[in-house]
Amino acid sequence: MKRHLISAADLTRDDAVLILDTAEEMARVADRPIKKLPTLRGRTVVNLFFEDSTRTRISFEAAAKRLSADVINFSAKGSSVSKGESLKDTALTLEAMGADAVVIRHHASGAPYRLANSGWIDGAVVNAGDGTHEHPTQALLDAFTMRRRLVGRDAGLGRDLSGRRITIVGDVLHSRVARSNVHLLTTLGAEVTLVAPPTLVPVGVESWPCEVSYDLDTVLPKSDAVMMLRVQRERMNAAFFPTEREYARRYGLDGDRMAKMPEHAIVMHPGPMNRGMEITAEVADSDRCTAVEQVANGVSTRMAVLYLLLGGSEPAVTTNNARTEESK
Amino acid sequence: MKRHLISAADLTRDDAVLILDTAEEMARVADRPIKKLPTLRGRTVVNLFFEDSTRTRISFEAAAKRLSADVINFSAKGSSVSKGESLKDTALTLEAMGADAVVIRHHASGAPYRLANSGWIDGAVVNAGDGTHEHPTQALLDAFTMRRRLVGRDAGLGRDLSGRRITIVGDVLHSRVARSNVHLLTTLGAEVTLVAPPTLVPVGVESWPCEVSYDLDTVLPKSDAVMMLRVQRERMNAAFFPTEREYARRYGLDGDRMAKMPEHAIVMHPGPMNRGMEITAEVADSDRCTAVEQVANGVSTRMAVLYLLLGGSEPAVTTNNARTEESK
Amino acid sequence: MKRHLISAADLTRDDAVLILDTAEEMARVADRPIKKLPTLRGRTVVNLFFEDSTRTRISFEAAAKRLSADVINFSAKGSSVSKGESLKDTALTLEAMGADAVVIRHHASGAPYRLANSGWIDGAVVNAGDGTHEHPTQALLDAFTMRRRLVGRDAGLGRDLSGRRITIVGDVLHSRVARSNVHLLTTLGAEVTLVAPPTLVPVGVESWPCEVSYDLDTVLPKSDAVMMLRVQRERMNAAFFPTEREYARRYGLDGDRMAKMPEHAIVMHPGPMNRGMEITAEVADSDRCTAVEQVANGVSTRMAVLYLLLGGSEPAVTTNNARTEESK
Repeated sequence: MKRHLISAADLTRDDAVLILDTAEEMARVADRPIKKLPTLRGRTVVNLFFEDSTRTRISFEAAAKRLSADVINFSAKGSSVSKGESLKDTALTLEAMGADAVVIRHHASGAPYRLANSGWIDGAVVNAGDGTHEHPTQALLDAFTMRRRLVGRDAGLGRDLSGRRITIVGDVLHSRVARSNVHLLTTLGAEVTLVAPPTLVPVGVESWPCEVSYDLDTVLPKSDAVMMLRVQRERMNAAFFPTEREYARRYGLDGDRMAKMPEHAIVMHPGPMNRGMEITAEVADSDRCTAVEQVANGVSTRMAVLYLLLGGSEPAVTTNNARTEESK
Repeated sequence: MKRHLISAADLTRDDAVLILDTAEEMARVADRPIKKLPTLRGRTVVNLFFEDSTRTRISFEAAAKRLSADVINFSAKGSSVSKGESLKDTALTLEAMGADAVVIRHHASGAPYRLANSGWIDGAVVNAGDGTHEHPTQALLDAFTMRRRLVGRDAGLGRDLSGRRITIVGDVLHSRVARSNVHLLTTLGAEVTLVAPPTLVPVGVESWPCEVSYDLDTVLPKSDAVMMLRVQRERMNAAFFPTEREYARRYGLDGDRMAKMPEHAIVMHPGPMNRGMEITAEVADSDRCTAVEQVANGVSTRMAVLYLLLGGSEPAVTTNNARTEESK
Repeated sequence: MKRHLISAADLTRDDAVLILDTAEEMARVADRPIKKLPTLRGRTVVNLFFEDSTRTRISFEAAAKRLSADVINFSAKGSSVSKGESLKDTALTLEAMGADAVVIRHHASGAPYRLANSGWIDGAVVNAGDGTHEHPTQALLDAFTMRRRLVGRDAGLGRDLSGRRITIVGDVLHSRVARSNVHLLTTLGAEVTLVAPPTLVPVGVESWPCEVSYDLDTVLPKSDAVMMLRVQRERMNAAFFPTEREYARRYGLDGDRMAKMPEHAIVMHPGPMNRGMEITAEVADSDRCTAVEQVANGVSTRMAVLYLLLGGSEPAVTTNNARTEESK
């Protein structure tokens, strides 16, 4: 594996499977009497957030603390360091202070890449969402959730998502979650279909390794997982956006639509959900919706990423490596 | 004891005495060379604050860290989660991330109750102040302070506040501190008198288990403890509020008034004090004022609450249980 | 050593050398597999910041955590405690909560002094910058950097800066960094020259133990270290301030000017740098610029300060004391 995690597009199938397998081991830590591993004691993880995102920040914070790392939160929003020109000085500062990993969230696409490839920093860089570009740990936790639900917890070890059909619905144009998922799911062998209003499909989508559809109802019966993207309220009144009513009617998931999905299929959402907009309360609260599991899986997946980037090559926990090896 | 601490009104006498006794044991940790217990190692305490309250937040943070828990601060103020409708999603998120306790401060009365009784969350919920409703750990630390001062540190173990006469003075109408104290002190056998401007007495106070008076001077000589409530500056210019001058003259505690109290009686204040308003500097800085002790006792009391909710049924430290048992 | 660190002017030569020597030992911790000492386990360090300063805050936070202390961040900016009158109550609160050290940053010169000398607080007070007064840990980390570069890492142990010629350039009038450095460097035997626009030289500078010059170019060839102060952008349009262009031309350090310095001389900057203003990118990125080292040295120096104030009189790490003793 590389030293940084900037983009889901950078991951090979083996990288991704290793992360998912490691995340399964990390998930077991939550079942222990003391839910903590000493693995990263003495290491410092800095959460460098140029945009507010409490959920993502505390997920990384919980993951790092569960591995016994020290966590320093650095909210750059509104401060002088939020200006693009000083990213270099911020990076050099964090490096000099001994940051072993910098988890960066930035409004500008490409900021984590610059941070990782500038030579400014020696520690690992983890992209926690950059502009409309990527959010690779979200894609990894989504893939982890799908593998558990569609392949199986133990049965999934060492396996990818070959042959699974995943549908991603909503504002694909502005969604780093969609972008990261398309890359990672394809790498893992899944078949991806995007469903979006025509104005919210990115230019150049033809070159993406996926199908595009404008009709949700025809796609649902052929989906093993349907991922509903969050509608950003601040975009709803923009010219390119359908009315709320129109959006919910054509692209929202309600009970009737969910009934068209195969029985084993799951509904995913990165959260927080706009109940009544892209998803009805009935669907959100059903057993088929994995939104809450995704949050829990997010901590395990981020533990795995931090462990693999910082901890070395040995297995994190105990584990029957044998099985992992065999099943590849 | 229950799984949550939402309201002082929920506590039985035995619950309350157990918390106070446990807090005494916790207070001893501060005298150790290493002021830390390993009791909650691997547990995660989330401070979920929808209102700013640095004092309360750092008191809980210090308490949790002294018990070796990991602490995650989640300031919801101003963020998207501050909207009431998403309390559910916030709760599910924290639960999924493995929060063992959620310490919640909310501007809406009843929010902690909803959090605890919704089934959204499996961890313990601790109310750190909700609207004008309750602030139970404040009442507990106040009771702890009174028991120490009026009954005795060792002599107090296992005992309640039977027969002590407590006077609470100020804006009772808007005070969750007053409300929690009336409940808890009554449960512990004390006799409570409220003194307030007529416009600042709650409707329905007749049903509360306490006396009401409008004349501070006649009550002081019969008080073992006088608790001065903080005047909220933002309420001072409201129509229902006396002028500042009038308030200080009729309901403020100065040296002359303090001299009317019995010699053993104490002056309490939850802090921060408005010197010159509800309390003069002379009184605030006198030996009889326990405001600073209350802060220290706050950490011990919150350690006790977190320990009892998360840690199980065994004694926290070492301790001569025997005495605790006997004295009941 | 005293119980507090309020001012570089309070330090004797032996105090200062002890801190620098201890900082050298602390710097070795960064080379260990687990970059952490158990020295301050169970101690609580509170970062009480009345002004934003993410860099200084996280430097202290990293230092305290590397010593295994618990850290509580208390951002007083904008909250009710930011009013001067309640510094006392804030202090009493932190003391009561068991703060072993309070690291204070305040817009008012003298606030840390009041905190330390009021009797409000029993723990150690560390000044992290007060108004235009002092910033002693910055001066210590600067001195540490100079000793390492100009005397030597091992060779420097037990030694001061006797005979070194240090030039400080920029807005001396408003700079607590300059003030602390003049005091400390003089105590350590260095010869200091200030270079500043006439309007940015403090009244009364004649009584300072240093030279003043208005001509950077004549001073450079006689300097062992040149410290460029940060220009505060908010002051640039004030009447007393030269135009940006004029400032850069007369007081900025570019490659041509740097070439006039002796070959062994270093360029220092407290960060963050305004590239193109007080320093060109060419100089900032050259090997002679120690800005990044200064950041790393800041963590070691603050570890030393916290250790010496809180930890007692024994050597922090292991170390060959002998050498330290001999070289004095």
